[in-house]
Amino acid sequence: MAERYFQHTFGNGLTLLAEQMPGMQSAAMTLMINAGASTDPVDRSGSATVLADLVLRGAGSRDSRQLTDYLDSLGLQRSSGVGVYHTRFGCAALAAKVVEGMAAYADILQRPHLPETGFQAGRDLALQAIAGIEDEPRQKLLIKLREWHYPSPYGRTAMGQKEHLEKLTLDLMKADHTDRYQAKDSIIAFAGNVDFARLKEEVETQFGDLQARPQQPVKVMPPPGNYHFEHAKTEQTHIGVAYASLPETHADYYTARLAIEVLSGGSSARLFTEIREKRGLVYSVGASYASLKDQGSILAYAGTSNERAQATLDCLITEIHRLNEGVEKDELERAKIGLKADIIMSGESTGARAGAIAHDYFMRGRIRTLDELKNAIDAVNVEKVNAYLKANKPGPFTIVIVGPKELKVPT
Amino acid sequence: MAERYFQHTFGNGLTLLAEQMPGMQSAAMTLMINAGASTDPVDRSGSATVLADLVLRGAGSRDSRQLTDYLDSLGLQRSSGVGVYHTRFGCAALAAKVVEGMAAYADILQRPHLPETGFQAGRDLALQAIAGIEDEPRQKLLIKLREWHYPSPYGRTAMGQKEHLEKLTLDLMKADHTDRYQAKDSIIAFAGNVDFARLKEEVETQFGDLQARPQQPVKVMPPPGNYHFEHAKTEQTHIGVAYASLPETHADYYTARLAIEVLSGGSSARLFTEIREKRGLVYSVGASYASLKDQGSILAYAGTSNERAQATLDCLITEIHRLNEGVEKDELERAKIGLKADIIMSGESTGARAGAIAHDYFMRGRIRTLDELKNAIDAVNVEKVNAYLKANKPGPFTIVIVGPKELKVPT
Repeated sequence: MAERYFQHTFGNGLTLLAEQMPGMQSAAMTLMINAGASTDPVDRSGSATVLADLVLRGAGSRDSRQLTDYLDSLGLQRSSGVGVYHTRFGCAALAAKVVEGMAAYADILQRPHLPETGFQAGRDLALQAIAGIEDEPRQKLLIKLREWHYPSPYGRTAMGQKEHLEKLTLDLMKADHTDRYQAKDSIIAFAGNVDFARLKEEVETQFGDLQARPQQPVKVMPPPGNYHFEHAKTEQTHIGVAYASLPETHADYYTARLAIEVLSGGSSARLFTEIREKRGLVYSVGASYASLKDQGSILAYAGTSNERAQATLDCLITEIHRLNEGVEKDELERAKIGLKADIIMSGESTGARAGAIAHDYFMRGRIRTLDELKNAIDAVNVEKVNAYLKANKPGPFTIVIVGPKELKVPT
Repeated sequence: MAERYFQHTFGNGLTLLAEQMPGMQSAAMTLMINAGASTDPVDRSGSATVLADLVLRGAGSRDSRQLTDYLDSLGLQRSSGVGVYHTRFGCAALAAKVVEGMAAYADILQRPHLPETGFQAGRDLALQAIAGIEDEPRQKLLIKLREWHYPSPYGRTAMGQKEHLEKLTLDLMKADHTDRYQAKDSIIAFAGNVDFARLKEEVETQFGDLQARPQQPVKVMPPPGNYHFEHAKTEQTHIGVAYASLPETHADYYTARLAIEVLSGGSSARLFTEIREKRGLVYSVGASYASLKDQGSILAYAGTSNERAQATLDCLITEIHRLNEGVEKDELERAKIGLKADIIMSGESTGARAGAIAHDYFMRGRIRTLDELKNAIDAVNVEKVNAYLKANKPGPFTIVIVGPKELKVPT
């Protein structure tokens, strides 16, 4: 590895990653714990989300109020959230403050107070968030599309289910914390104006005692797939289409990925020019690549008026099929330039890089350098893409509609 | 000015701004034209939005398709939008590509094709966007809150009105383009790995012929204010509260601004801790400062279940009033650290800096350095804030509710 990138796995299984970006004043941290929506206990969907809120309500020597006061006093811009595989805590600030804040995050992981009142309030918020989805049909569509397309439990929403949340108790939360807030396969990543040797010492001090615990294997069930209609009294019809692609770790990943960029990468990509600009069918349309650990997917979305919904769905499916007739050299060239521009821009953001190296390590067990990414994109040519598209017809499709009227699925 | 910051106004009234950030590979451009929602002709609200779409549908030697292909082939990450005062075009990429793309933006401003088919399609999209708002009650609330709180026409939404959009014609668009896409008081700002001398030459070449045209004065009418209820069959009630603050250009701006950061700056700020964390009333709550050219406002938002809506509104108004009893030294200190952290993070983003220097120039006629911002924040102390709060009671309030049931306005 170049001197910019570093990794080290401690005895308890926690991995430290770092990207030194000496031109920056700031640093960002991403902490990924193996508590994701897919590892929520089967009858307690949403547990990780409630827990991610609860651990912030006091930890170590600080009560809830003191903890948020302290983190704000360091100037940490913070985020947290639950994904398919992980609960993620992130922060960014002046580099020295991020390092200083690490001890508080060690408290949050290992010594949270888990107070009863905080649990009740946090669960209430989670229930409110679920109720709020009814007012956001677009978000509802994206949740349902994953639910119907991904193998269970990978398609579960981290928001959980109302009935499951109602059954949660503080004791269950405490048990869940012990089981899943542990060291094995957890990741702590830093990017910015940091020094790896110093980080290693500090992470060992703060997280060296984090226990490693055996993780339950996940029982995977095939997805429902096919067609799902969710009735909603909306002004717009929200359309989702999903189908399989290569996993991100596949040797041909960038070949498949660049084909999708031709479909939906920039303003000159096909979905935008054909469906929005030429035909004026939709205000919003797009398709993007999404990866589980060993399965890639294409998720496409369109939001349109109820009258144009059927034409939009037909047109979307047509464009997806037409992609497999092949791409032009020019459109591929633009797609390559677009992806490389994304890499350059993210290379100037400590937050983006901390997230990216953590994701890389989770997916591949190592960090990819920015040069490696650029070279992988440059190695793709129009012959490779067209051979791939010819050999891999899209489908079967999972189609989800949220709106007032069912649509006819194109054959 | 330090060597990092540059400004120059050309003979036609266009101002070039630059912030040289030599550590970066990228650059960002922000182009602000005096075509905002507030200068839309009175009976053609939404005109600037349709025009901002239409000018991208072919310009100079390139038709619509060739233009988007070309901009994508430069790897430009682009954005455009219409605000209260301006239509804004932005892009970011490798610095050399941003400079290269300038000629295409000169075409877009001065030599757009304004095709009839593109006009029809663009207007249709604008009408769809308006219809879509019915599915997004939170966004609807924020639009209505500005409409009821700001003096007209500053509170108009850039999305326009259905009846107005339907009356637009291509000839009206052409006339509007001639009137408003002009040089006087327009701004072009760059931040990143750029050289000011080179930029100045290129901007002069590309935009030197942009005509200066007299701008119509805006006729200002007092806002409706008070209380407005917008019935919607939603699962949540969306609550907006607005009241006056100091304009951004006022000497005491940071005093007023830091008081609002104490109310709603970070996780330890009052609205979040009192209304969300302690009382669990809302999933989402916040207040932020917003500035017109000569009027500052505080806009507060809360989204909650219909049952808790009244309690939430009461609690929100109580916290706003309680702020004026004064702030603690510690909370002010955290607010100062938080704002300074924002400045540090944005100082590492070419896109954020290009936008910030353009905004500064529009508001003040000059660029503020990052050090100037930090010093202005450091100069605020708890005595100043509390004296300001004591002398400036909040209100009168503009209160807007979007939801199924009217609420009682607290007295």
